[in-house]
Amino acid sequence: MGIINNINKAFDHRVRLGIMSVLMVNEHADFRALKELLDVTDGNLASHAKALEQAGYISVQKQFIGKKPNTKYVVTTTGKTAFKKHLDALEKLINRNQ
Amino acid sequence: MGIINNINKAFDHRVRLGIMSVLMVNEHADFRALKELLDVTDGNLASHAKALEQAGYISVQKQFIGKKPNTKYVVTTTGKTAFKKHLDALEKLINRNQ
Repeated sequence: MGIINNINKAFDHRVRLGIMSVLMVNEHADFRALKELLDVTDGNLASHAKALEQAGYISVQKQFIGKKPNTKYVVTTTGKTAFKKHLDALEKLINRNQ
Repeated sequence: MGIINNINKAFDHRVRLGIMSVLMVNEHADFRALKELLDVTDGNLASHAKALEQAGYISVQKQFIGKKPNTKYVVTTTGKTAFKKHLDALEKLINRNQ
């Protein structure tokens, strides 16, 4: 059992950490808000959101606000549990170093 | 300025986190020891160690112990500083979620 085994590969990218981090403390966030908070490109955000969606950690709600399409992200229960476990593992790693 | 800007891309992988984490608390570690601690394959460890070496965060010492080649890794001063900054950024992200 390696010391990094509890670090979840699905969260192994700063953009994914950022997305999860925002969604853990906000009921939902739309594409534009996430993009601004994380300071990333559309393509970058879209691909990492897709990966988290495919892992079942976030869900996506597409709707129209007036005539404008709006994409909203919500963290799933599975995602919450997995992210907490990931943060615990990171915290243990950090504490090894302090 | 995004909330993930201080998270260093070079450490954006659990194997790299693991390598740095081991080298921060040990003066040096050889390939075999790292491989066991992190529970990864030779190829995986070699490619991530190479990336950290190219970033200037670790240095590699190759020598022979008897007739056996031995590869030893050491964290550089730049690496120490960068990794501490990275851990601070991770810690801030974790604290947002607790």
